[in-house]
Amino acid sequence: MKKIRAAIVGYGNIGRYTLQALEAAPDFEVAGVVRRSGAENLPAELVGYNVVKDIRELDEVDVAILSTPTRSVERYAKDILALGINTVDSFDIHSKIVDLRRSLDDSAKAGNAVSIISAGWDPGSDSVVRTLLQAIAPKGITYTNFGPGMSMGHTVAVKAIEGVQAALSMTIPVGTGIHRRMVYIELEEGYEYEQVAAAIKNDPYFVNDETHVIEVPSVDELLDMGHGVHLTRKGVSGTTQNQLFEFSMKINNPALTSQVLVCAARATMRQQPGCYTMIEIPIVDLLYGDREELIAHLV
Amino acid sequence: MKKIRAAIVGYGNIGRYTLQALEAAPDFEVAGVVRRSGAENLPAELVGYNVVKDIRELDEVDVAILSTPTRSVERYAKDILALGINTVDSFDIHSKIVDLRRSLDDSAKAGNAVSIISAGWDPGSDSVVRTLLQAIAPKGITYTNFGPGMSMGHTVAVKAIEGVQAALSMTIPVGTGIHRRMVYIELEEGYEYEQVAAAIKNDPYFVNDETHVIEVPSVDELLDMGHGVHLTRKGVSGTTQNQLFEFSMKINNPALTSQVLVCAARATMRQQPGCYTMIEIPIVDLLYGDREELIAHLV
Repeated sequence: MKKIRAAIVGYGNIGRYTLQALEAAPDFEVAGVVRRSGAENLPAELVGYNVVKDIRELDEVDVAILSTPTRSVERYAKDILALGINTVDSFDIHSKIVDLRRSLDDSAKAGNAVSIISAGWDPGSDSVVRTLLQAIAPKGITYTNFGPGMSMGHTVAVKAIEGVQAALSMTIPVGTGIHRRMVYIELEEGYEYEQVAAAIKNDPYFVNDETHVIEVPSVDELLDMGHGVHLTRKGVSGTTQNQLFEFSMKINNPALTSQVLVCAARATMRQQPGCYTMIEIPIVDLLYGDREELIAHLV
Repeated sequence: MKKIRAAIVGYGNIGRYTLQALEAAPDFEVAGVVRRSGAENLPAELVGYNVVKDIRELDEVDVAILSTPTRSVERYAKDILALGINTVDSFDIHSKIVDLRRSLDDSAKAGNAVSIISAGWDPGSDSVVRTLLQAIAPKGITYTNFGPGMSMGHTVAVKAIEGVQAALSMTIPVGTGIHRRMVYIELEEGYEYEQVAAAIKNDPYFVNDETHVIEVPSVDELLDMGHGVHLTRKGVSGTTQNQLFEFSMKINNPALTSQVLVCAARATMRQQPGCYTMIEIPIVDLLYGDREELIAHLV
């Protein structure tokens, strides 16, 4: 069997978990890792791998798994698709997904390549569940409740506020898609808790949510990469009311994101050139194995 | 907008709910209803519709929704696909889905038509969830727990046993995919409870499950078409253990089946000729509406 040759582009948290998921997948081989510092200061798990500064230095890459910050995804993807290499990413700014899809669809078709975007867990696998529930109960309301777990975006926003030395913003679900923000901070010397807390609560990321700011001696001691979702829909099938659905998970956040990326990378090999979200590809394409055997086991 | 013209083939429980779902869908029109008795003894809700004995009597049918017993699905589907009309069904004998898919794939391609099979809730929407969870946590165990709710297959099996006048077999989940069977019967005159109960417990449908047989004065008073599922997966993403997932629903059984059939009928209009299960089609194809708007709302 010819294995799918995947490159990991960007080597932070997601990159590390992506390497584990690729090593665990029977149909993949790691073509190499692209990181800014190249082969300098190589972490132990990368020894033996081809670690480079530019994807052009790697041979026969089928698909690039973008583990870069969300805001760099478009730039990297366009560059790599132009080389005729498929891309996947976990781009997570919900309001900009349609724009990204349009932009990368052009690049993918021009490069005769495939891009699957926003392939994490939300957007990503949750999107598949939301779409399925909307289909099977077309009228009604879906609530996506996140957490308890660390919000990367909110944590970054807190860290940018003057006087904050270290921060952790936890997302706490209070039901019907409403969330409480529990913000744990270490103060920089010379700053007052009251002023910093007020600045956090007025930040656009927090101003609409119930937000509690708590000063702690060590943010690091609170860090845990577990997260969760509780997604509900109450709706109408045909004219029958009160159809009730729930989807929930308790997961390691970067491990799940990385596994979805690897599945999506596999699925890029089975689509026509263009850019897709997870709801636009057959779910079975995410899986390794014989099609009929998968159908016999799973349908 | 040109509407999708759907025919309902078979007019029992599923056929009735399918009519409701078609009437509620903005992009469908009912081309007609095919039933054995044709337009005789027409139920009130069918007045005004074209009700016939053979689908050939209907004009410009795009898709036939098969609401026939599962064992007649293949015969009807082959006949209708040969006419160049798409078909959908909720064929539910899990062990024979691969065979049906092969058989109808040939017919569909020969007729330049599309067939989506096993498009109910299990097999059907549950299959999509199972496939998704298998993808995002490739190692681990999925348990599908059904009920509490009425099992159609088990109820039919009980009714076939000598001495049973009326029956209802309820499926009760006891976890890890194991089910208890609660069987409610009315006895025919001249039969002993002990003998009939023993015969039920020895039937192949029941012999491997914990089964309780209860004699009641009226089975009809117990009938309720609510059902449920609680599907769990505990698995491994990459090399990260203990990823926990749950999907559950409490639903009106025929209403949900019919809604899935109507969504699948829509999706037949967007596939290449051939036969598909639900896990092989893009989930977004189940939905009515502008593709980019759906992506903006759901992804």
